[in-house]
Amino acid sequence: MRVLGIDCGCERTGYGVIESDGLEHRLVDSGVIRTSPRTPFERRLLEIVRGLRQVIRQHLPEAAAVEGIFYSSNVKTALKLAHVRGVALLALAEASLEMSEYSPLEVKTSVVGYGRAQKNQVQMMVRSLLRAPAPIESEDACDALAVAICHATHSGVAHRHDVVEKAI
Amino acid sequence: MRVLGIDCGCERTGYGVIESDGLEHRLVDSGVIRTSPRTPFERRLLEIVRGLRQVIRQHLPEAAAVEGIFYSSNVKTALKLAHVRGVALLALAEASLEMSEYSPLEVKTSVVGYGRAQKNQVQMMVRSLLRAPAPIESEDACDALAVAICHATHSGVAHRHDVVEKAI
Repeated sequence: MRVLGIDCGCERTGYGVIESDGLEHRLVDSGVIRTSPRTPFERRLLEIVRGLRQVIRQHLPEAAAVEGIFYSSNVKTALKLAHVRGVALLALAEASLEMSEYSPLEVKTSVVGYGRAQKNQVQMMVRSLLRAPAPIESEDACDALAVAICHATHSGVAHRHDVVEKAI
Repeated sequence: MRVLGIDCGCERTGYGVIESDGLEHRLVDSGVIRTSPRTPFERRLLEIVRGLRQVIRQHLPEAAAVEGIFYSSNVKTALKLAHVRGVALLALAEASLEMSEYSPLEVKTSVVGYGRAQKNQVQMMVRSLLRAPAPIESEDACDALAVAICHATHSGVAHRHDVVEKAI
């Protein structure tokens, strides 16, 4: 299964594409769509959606995953992020991609095995799980890959449950 | 000047198109893009953006206005609304439309002359200012027209200032 993970952000939207059978994962591509704070907000949204469409066209993922939105710290920032998330979900809907959401806790638990893992632990595990020869380009790309791994693992578990149930 | 006003909402996104010289306004079209709560959220975003693109294609507005987001009541609702607003701003950016934002206070002050006006006062004034023969179809369409009128009035004032300054 080819999974696209997205880490939404106004200045930097990370993306990561992996191939996975639910147990073993392989890095296909990852990167960051950057927009300038000097660009009007609506133009930035256009740049982000165009970037994501390009990634989808290039890698043809079969599933997509994003982090659910949380707003513990700053409501204004969360609202801005929600605008970006809106256009990211739109890009997935345009491509008829099934979209799954995971909380930061679920992502960390899935990748590191511990929901309160630190950023650098997540980065280390992502690199290790994907057997990436070099560190992942950026934190945002790494977060996107972590969401993709989380989804692949969950789907793999669900798939294996299906197989076991059918076998019984 | 032809102005598009948008009143974003997850279930109902109102739109209103007016022709205006900044003082006198004329209703061109108004309506509501409805989406079903049974449809996945990302598909609803797609339906909303498609509806707005259709309105823009049909009426070719020269400017667009939306209400700024406010989140006094319910953060969860505000975050959902921000997703919708994200795709609405995207539709404007795709059409290279200049976008202006107004607070609910500015809209009410502009339309009714009183920032704490009630919904029905706004509706009555919108109908009256546009010389609409019948009441506006829905509250959401009416709110969208109110934002459009607010923008046309503001632009008209700015334009007249320019003319006066040049004359001096």
